Amino acid sequence: MTDLSHLYAARANDIQPSAIRKLAHLVKQPGIISFAGGWPAPELFPVSDLAQISADMWANEGSSALQYGPTPGDERLRNWLVNHNQTVYGLDLTLDNLIITSGAQQGLFLLGLLLLNEGDTIVVEAPSYVGGLGTFQIFNPNMVGIPMDNEGLRTDLLEEQLIAGLRPKFLYTIPEFQNPSGISMSLPRRQHLIQLAEEYDFLIVEDGPYIDLRFDGIPTPPIYALDKNKRTIFLSSFSKTLAPVRLGWVVGPSMIVDKLAIGKQSIDLCTPSLTQTLVYHFCDNGHLPAQLAQTCHLYRQKRDIMLAALTQYMPIGVTWTNPEGGLFIWVTLPEDVNADELFYEAIEAQVAFVIGSAFYPKGQAAYNTLRLSFATAPLDQITTGIQRLAQIIPSRSTQPEPFAMPSATAI
Amino acid sequence: MTDLSHLYAARANDIQPSAIRKLAHLVKQPGIISFAGGWPAPELFPVSDLAQISADMWANEGSSALQYGPTPGDERLRNWLVNHNQTVYGLDLTLDNLIITSGAQQGLFLLGLLLLNEGDTIVVEAPSYVGGLGTFQIFNPNMVGIPMDNEGLRTDLLEEQLIAGLRPKFLYTIPEFQNPSGISMSLPRRQHLIQLAEEYDFLIVEDGPYIDLRFDGIPTPPIYALDKNKRTIFLSSFSKTLAPVRLGWVVGPSMIVDKLAIGKQSIDLCTPSLTQTLVYHFCDNGHLPAQLAQTCHLYRQKRDIMLAALTQYMPIGVTWTNPEGGLFIWVTLPEDVNADELFYEAIEAQVAFVIGSAFYPKGQAAYNTLRLSFATAPLDQITTGIQRLAQIIPSRSTQPEPFAMPSATAI
Repeated sequence: MTDLSHLYAARANDIQPSAIRKLAHLVKQPGIISFAGGWPAPELFPVSDLAQISADMWANEGSSALQYGPTPGDERLRNWLVNHNQTVYGLDLTLDNLIITSGAQQGLFLLGLLLLNEGDTIVVEAPSYVGGLGTFQIFNPNMVGIPMDNEGLRTDLLEEQLIAGLRPKFLYTIPEFQNPSGISMSLPRRQHLIQLAEEYDFLIVEDGPYIDLRFDGIPTPPIYALDKNKRTIFLSSFSKTLAPVRLGWVVGPSMIVDKLAIGKQSIDLCTPSLTQTLVYHFCDNGHLPAQLAQTCHLYRQKRDIMLAALTQYMPIGVTWTNPEGGLFIWVTLPEDVNADELFYEAIEAQVAFVIGSAFYPKGQAAYNTLRLSFATAPLDQITTGIQRLAQIIPSRSTQPEPFAMPSATAI
Repeated sequence: MTDLSHLYAARANDIQPSAIRKLAHLVKQPGIISFAGGWPAPELFPVSDLAQISADMWANEGSSALQYGPTPGDERLRNWLVNHNQTVYGLDLTLDNLIITSGAQQGLFLLGLLLLNEGDTIVVEAPSYVGGLGTFQIFNPNMVGIPMDNEGLRTDLLEEQLIAGLRPKFLYTIPEFQNPSGISMSLPRRQHLIQLAEEYDFLIVEDGPYIDLRFDGIPTPPIYALDKNKRTIFLSSFSKTLAPVRLGWVVGPSMIVDKLAIGKQSIDLCTPSLTQTLVYHFCDNGHLPAQLAQTCHLYRQKRDIMLAALTQYMPIGVTWTNPEGGLFIWVTLPEDVNADELFYEAIEAQVAFVIGSAFYPKGQAAYNTLRLSFATAPLDQITTGIQRLAQIIPSRSTQPEPFAMPSATAI
């Protein structure tokens, strides 16, 4: 085969498989209990509702469900989403502020495309969503990770860096049930962040795919709802509340949303009318609240079982977060234990997780961390999986600090 | 509203609406007979077949149709496509050479992302597909248009420029029933192009969405099939043969396809499993040949009516192409008639087309040209629409040269 790599763009070096992708084949071996994937539990998918909606769709609007649609999305679904974002999340928006994307992932990519020159600075939570980091990395920015604690992003540390001269284009945050940590950002931190964004002239990219998956506690308003300066761009998705049919949305200033739509036209012309039509009717028929209730009920059970098993089986020297929702628990191992190495032992022991180092910008990783998802594994396998994991982790005499059990004021 | 445009990347200037997008709202006025959109005829969509397949899908594999899938695509559909590309188009490929994309449009974008540094040279046909030009433009290349005649791209003119020092990363071509011209590239031109690509070390990006829509004449093998040097990347789509459910594919060297998959993961994680499952069963059940036969039958009728009407009503001084398939006819007006201006008169006269200037790289447009699509307008409106158009075109005493009626040896 002719080597054609001399014809690649410079950014081809930044189009690299994530560590997760490289390890994915190991996770799929038979017998392994996987806490690795961030996939929703398939037993929750509303198959029979969608079968009925689908039959009606073919009967009444089959041709339009198969045709090209407008680039910003099906106007009925956009209108439904405007109302949903207003009434459920308290966002201030009109139709001009919202675009439907092929998953929130596409929204993140479009924001990178619109905003990032090579070498531009962006700030991310450390750790953060691997798919966000990977997408931004394509534009080769200067990516700065800011540590978190149980109240979320350490805005005090961010402020120190801003005072010292850091000038980001945007800050990327998942303030509610963060991927991978499960932590939510406290109200004072959100307010501080908004103040910093205005003072230092950057945007806040708020990723909210887990926002509806709250099992306990009181919700904090989204940053977008708190930000009177309108410097926040909010993204969310149906992937974790209905199913990953590749439907997300972006809410932001209309001048930015307009540009995203033009970029989206070059990327895929439009999101399929078919999936948008199905999801519109699912939402418009009022199925979403019951679907969410069922989802939260199951995930709460799964989280509780996992937390109980961690408490029962983990050796001294291991801590973990205690999320009030979402899909993920973040585990901190003794400082000298490397989760990248532990991963292979875990596969031998028939249990899988995601290595924590994958969730950090290059060169900024904490190697004694790992992510557990409680969403996908069956209820009756979670305890066994945690037992298997606990057995391969060496114990130490003291508990490490980061992400210790959240305090009562954390949310 | 705060102006945030100072936070945009430099490329934001190249994320611009196409002329077509800007004019789209005018085309949708009631009473207008539109030859503008490149949309397939909705009356052809196989709604009842898909309704049945869909019912079976929900019953048998509803959960997996709603879950995330592999980034390169559903393996069943990929295998079907490998076979289809081998047996129908004569391409030499294995599974590693094929990735499913969210429309061929996404394939074009991914190729731009992988291959184009700012200022890199690429060659396109002049005129060419506006969505291809717009996608490549985002990467701010030096885009060089090479004229066409009735045998397609003038490879002799390309060779002159290569000898003079032109060094493209790739050449983008739609060799079969080109959008917008309807012209197909002759076998000698294809062979010459392949030779030039090897000699001057560039890739050929071959876009084949209309390849199955042949009404008359003998097919020429795709460039990919002729290119023993393996420098060709072939793209196609289900949009014009089944429906625009945003499913396309790219065939190319595995090292390039691998990189496209990693890029795709950052753009949308995966194409919806739902649409891939439906289309897989549609194809696997053997529905595609009948669907294609029906499509070609209807489009042939529509083309014939449009060509007859053009012959009957167009004034002296107007010429047009005579495509053997596809969706489009390209019209050349007298040299001093500007189709950009004529467009508004046409809207007044209740008929719409796409201005030819939209299909050229910046600064290289021929303004006396326009594109007619015969696919979307109903059969019984085509003649009236052409009459309306003919009435507003001023006549001249001589016929212009470019894209005059194809000679018998053109294909």
